[in-house]
Amino acid sequence: MEKSVIIKPVGYVRSDLKERYEAPRQGTMTAATGAVIELEPGCNFEQALTGLEGFSHLWIIYIFHKNDSWKPMVTPPRNGGKKVGVFASRSPHRPNRTGLSCVKYIKHEGLNIYISGSDMLDGTPVLDIKPYLPYSDSFPEAATGWAGERVQVSYEIRVAPGAAEQAAVIKEKEGQNLLNYARVQLSVNPDDVSRKRVSIVEGNRYCLSYRKWRIYYEVDINSGTVHVSEIR
Amino acid sequence: MEKSVIIKPVGYVRSDLKERYEAPRQGTMTAATGAVIELEPGCNFEQALTGLEGFSHLWIIYIFHKNDSWKPMVTPPRNGGKKVGVFASRSPHRPNRTGLSCVKYIKHEGLNIYISGSDMLDGTPVLDIKPYLPYSDSFPEAATGWAGERVQVSYEIRVAPGAAEQAAVIKEKEGQNLLNYARVQLSVNPDDVSRKRVSIVEGNRYCLSYRKWRIYYEVDINSGTVHVSEIR
Repeated sequence: MEKSVIIKPVGYVRSDLKERYEAPRQGTMTAATGAVIELEPGCNFEQALTGLEGFSHLWIIYIFHKNDSWKPMVTPPRNGGKKVGVFASRSPHRPNRTGLSCVKYIKHEGLNIYISGSDMLDGTPVLDIKPYLPYSDSFPEAATGWAGERVQVSYEIRVAPGAAEQAAVIKEKEGQNLLNYARVQLSVNPDDVSRKRVSIVEGNRYCLSYRKWRIYYEVDINSGTVHVSEIR
Repeated sequence: MEKSVIIKPVGYVRSDLKERYEAPRQGTMTAATGAVIELEPGCNFEQALTGLEGFSHLWIIYIFHKNDSWKPMVTPPRNGGKKVGVFASRSPHRPNRTGLSCVKYIKHEGLNIYISGSDMLDGTPVLDIKPYLPYSDSFPEAATGWAGERVQVSYEIRVAPGAAEQAAVIKEKEGQNLLNYARVQLSVNPDDVSRKRVSIVEGNRYCLSYRKWRIYYEVDINSGTVHVSEIR
């Protein structure tokens, strides 16, 4: 019986998503976020990618490396505040910190695998890469217990020219991609003020916090649009 | 950058599948094989299962603990002998020996999770358990590159009374479940004599080897039936 297993990552993710709160709640539920998996040199991993062409999706098994602790019960989003067991959830705070994401495969070159639709943070250690096989992996009618149906509403994010300029300046000067952050955070449930970084300003005007910055936006529920009006 | 990660299994599989050559090539491609995941005591894992009721499928991330080595290129079944990269395959011989299986959830009691459709061997160390969510995990139209379509032909296994008696005696005396082995090995491609344990006797009569035992059977391609006639 193997009491502990030592795992050496086969590679690491390079991505614009730098911090935990930048990650979408489900990778495939937001617009494509590009990333690269850089495999480790000296292991013949170049060869190990032969034949990946023609697959559209890949499984990535990885470590939630920014998470240290876990609890047996978690409070998932959209469960009315009710707790469920961590093994009945996809919470990133879990024993062994093991993540599983289905991403879109774009191409590979040398030791780099280009993917999209990823929710992995920059620096994520990757344990394994497997091709997605619908005949063993796809169960569209699987029952989902407490988790219910997918939230279908995905908001379109529109950015006012002034806010886009402010974001460009901040990205240039301080390396923070606030528009990416806004897109990740606001494309689903932008008016959910139970989230700690979202507050209501007045009416349908909200503020999303990101470190020292504030992103102001209006939510148009009817058209499913978020208007980002100001970043400061 | 985490250079190595120590993983402590959350539990171990108990199953009738004892050896590597008993495992089906894809867990969900054979008739239900029952198994139990026994979680480790003293970690509050009982609680961590709360809310699993109502899910039909679970992801199990585990270690192929009977496999020690890997190579960058593998020869998968049904690829005409051509090699592909290990990351473009689901081969169990892979870096970090990481397995990923979607199994059917039956029930849990205390620290035991009852599952079916599993291809994990007895003693398999389990790293994580996650609920299957079709809206993030199911892509029925995913492209499969070299792997092509699922082989649809699944043979029905019929066992002659004499052979069933022989199997019962062997199970009783030596603890080997030959009927389970025959079912696993013969429900897909029973006439594939390129496999090292299958040989042709004459006509449509074949022999499947299992340690010191021999399983004789006839294949009826038209009706999709395997008749197990003798075990000795």
